[in-house]
Amino acid sequence: MPVNLQAPVPEQLHPVAGVRLGIAEAGVRKAHRKDLVVIELAEGSAVAGVFTQNRYCAAPVQVCREHLAVGTAVRALVINTGNANAGTGADGLARARRTAAALAAQVGVQPQQVLPFSTGVIMETLPVERIEAGLPAALADLSATNWGRAAEGIMTTDTLPKAASRQVQIGGKTVTVTGISKGAGMIRPNMATMLGFVATDAVIAPALLQPLVKAAADASFNRITIDGDTSTNDSFVLIATRQAGHAEITALDSAEGQALQAAVFAVAQQLAQAIVRDGEGATKFITVQIEGGRTEAECQLAAYAIAHSPLVKTAFFASDPNLGRILAAVGYAGIADLDQTRIEMFLDDVHVVTQGGRNPAYREEDGQRVMKQAEITVRVHLGRGAASATVWTCDLSHDYVSINADYRS
Amino acid sequence: MPVNLQAPVPEQLHPVAGVRLGIAEAGVRKAHRKDLVVIELAEGSAVAGVFTQNRYCAAPVQVCREHLAVGTAVRALVINTGNANAGTGADGLARARRTAAALAAQVGVQPQQVLPFSTGVIMETLPVERIEAGLPAALADLSATNWGRAAEGIMTTDTLPKAASRQVQIGGKTVTVTGISKGAGMIRPNMATMLGFVATDAVIAPALLQPLVKAAADASFNRITIDGDTSTNDSFVLIATRQAGHAEITALDSAEGQALQAAVFAVAQQLAQAIVRDGEGATKFITVQIEGGRTEAECQLAAYAIAHSPLVKTAFFASDPNLGRILAAVGYAGIADLDQTRIEMFLDDVHVVTQGGRNPAYREEDGQRVMKQAEITVRVHLGRGAASATVWTCDLSHDYVSINADYRS
Repeated sequence: MPVNLQAPVPEQLHPVAGVRLGIAEAGVRKAHRKDLVVIELAEGSAVAGVFTQNRYCAAPVQVCREHLAVGTAVRALVINTGNANAGTGADGLARARRTAAALAAQVGVQPQQVLPFSTGVIMETLPVERIEAGLPAALADLSATNWGRAAEGIMTTDTLPKAASRQVQIGGKTVTVTGISKGAGMIRPNMATMLGFVATDAVIAPALLQPLVKAAADASFNRITIDGDTSTNDSFVLIATRQAGHAEITALDSAEGQALQAAVFAVAQQLAQAIVRDGEGATKFITVQIEGGRTEAECQLAAYAIAHSPLVKTAFFASDPNLGRILAAVGYAGIADLDQTRIEMFLDDVHVVTQGGRNPAYREEDGQRVMKQAEITVRVHLGRGAASATVWTCDLSHDYVSINADYRS
Repeated sequence: MPVNLQAPVPEQLHPVAGVRLGIAEAGVRKAHRKDLVVIELAEGSAVAGVFTQNRYCAAPVQVCREHLAVGTAVRALVINTGNANAGTGADGLARARRTAAALAAQVGVQPQQVLPFSTGVIMETLPVERIEAGLPAALADLSATNWGRAAEGIMTTDTLPKAASRQVQIGGKTVTVTGISKGAGMIRPNMATMLGFVATDAVIAPALLQPLVKAAADASFNRITIDGDTSTNDSFVLIATRQAGHAEITALDSAEGQALQAAVFAVAQQLAQAIVRDGEGATKFITVQIEGGRTEAECQLAAYAIAHSPLVKTAFFASDPNLGRILAAVGYAGIADLDQTRIEMFLDDVHVVTQGGRNPAYREEDGQRVMKQAEITVRVHLGRGAASATVWTCDLSHDYVSINADYRS
């Protein structure tokens, strides 16, 4: 039951010059399921990515890091669902390399020019021969207008595909930013999330791509949580085909750089929020906004304490303004010298807590009214400084338990 | 549905010379419910406590800290359920003080000689007049054999009372250690848990009581988690009435000190584990044992990452050996230079992971067999050193969601 999320309309997903996508049914785990996606990039494209900080990172993540470190021009990405190829040791690493090599051979590039991605069950052997067998069909399907179908092709427990697109004028040219993402559980990206792919035809200096993807991740995928579980496979990749025809962007803080960054942030945030809206079992979309902190880091501590608390999340599920649970989470967030008498709390427009205690003017029915909404903003003011942080999350429902108790069966 | 937990048998709860307990129905939140407990201590008793590290600590916790800091001899404790008196600001503090003063007046001691405790809903006004009105009945009920009824009197969402008792020979005398605890949700004590009370008649130098209660908490209540939510009211109190008649214990590392410590640890661990066994919605009791770490702190990081992961906890609920979720949790626990190729994992006697990958000898049916048990030990070897840590937790079930979505209604 996704929260205010619709399937993307294919016609509104603008093609990015230099990017073609192909989808196939490879039967990685189950038959008759789009589970293999190839993204082909034109010569001259630049690619940067950020990956999970989970020390148990998956084999394909390790191969991606290696290939990006080599510095060769990436020409293709291959993504399978149904199997994460994580917790699979040296054999898993060999299978990830074999996947990249197989696609490289079929498109006529070096293995280092291919990035492999996997998502699905952890600790099972990747059936690489099925992926190899599926590649010709995916390549035959390549098209610039396949963004919507590719979004479907990377889904696992997602109930809807996730895609976003923006166009912006830079140097008199129309620049496109289009992306897809997936994910609904094991979501607390610590660097980026499994999986986000955003492409633009902007002409940007390749050296700027890595700072841009990092900044975009920090403003989007690194600000969402569903269950606090950081995946082994989180990957967020930004592609610039550099075909839009305007003068090269050589600084992110130039007017053109800022215009591009705004478009990339908007696409990344929409994709990240789509993951929360489609969170496993989600019935509410919650924005947690912490203000008045000394540092952004301590605001994040408080925001994540609220966003991860099973007690807070079940109260949202129940539409129960049991707001003391939010205060308790702020209290144990790890801000050592927090003064509870300075805390103010708002639920949307309702002023619930003042000077650390219940606001005398607060009426339960006002809290109840807000809690019944599908979208709720919790705003906590720490009264210590000027820093702030925002995190997006969802509630914890019976369906979350059902989905994760049944996932493999 | 508590996991292998029976109600304590009153006759097996040995009275502690110098301690009497009285229980009453004060109607704090609901009528016809034992919700008020008074514990009276004989002159010469020593008391030490550890309290929640939640910065949003409740008013009674603040009052307890003040009264213990004054150093006056504590002569009585008063505990109410139904209302936590947390998130209640200056008014809540005044009401906690008034509770202590009311009991002090009725037993003829100074207010500073009374410790107040509250547990229940957060952010609601404590009906102190109902507690005052209930005190005479609680005092009329005082008896040395009331430990079992007092355990019932401090329950909230607990389904069973929790009590434990041990006797040990010290200096030719029988020394008794008896205690009670409560708690089923908002359980991730960061210092001690809401609420644990352990009393002994051991003759122990009062200065040793604080290090002993701290050590006991670290070996028991500070090693359990149900939902990762650290309560605003956690309190663990150790009382020594010093009436057992043996020579005074003046060092914890003496033979007598070690004998007493072992008995206190045993009672505290049984009480702490009882809280997990009665965890909200619990169907499994899980021991998470991390070995081979460089430091105890990093072992705890890994243990809590596993014990808090909703994905791991739902897999236990489903009896599904989806063990990659445990590896993922170890990976994101925050051990910066963890080498995944050195990880070994066991589920009871079943060797699941070797060198970071699936053990070739592992068979799914063996994992399945263990996962179906009501008590499971997860053992992870990090391959980095000789430190270890153990944490006790339970699974995450539909009933946890139901209980916490309905708690206030």
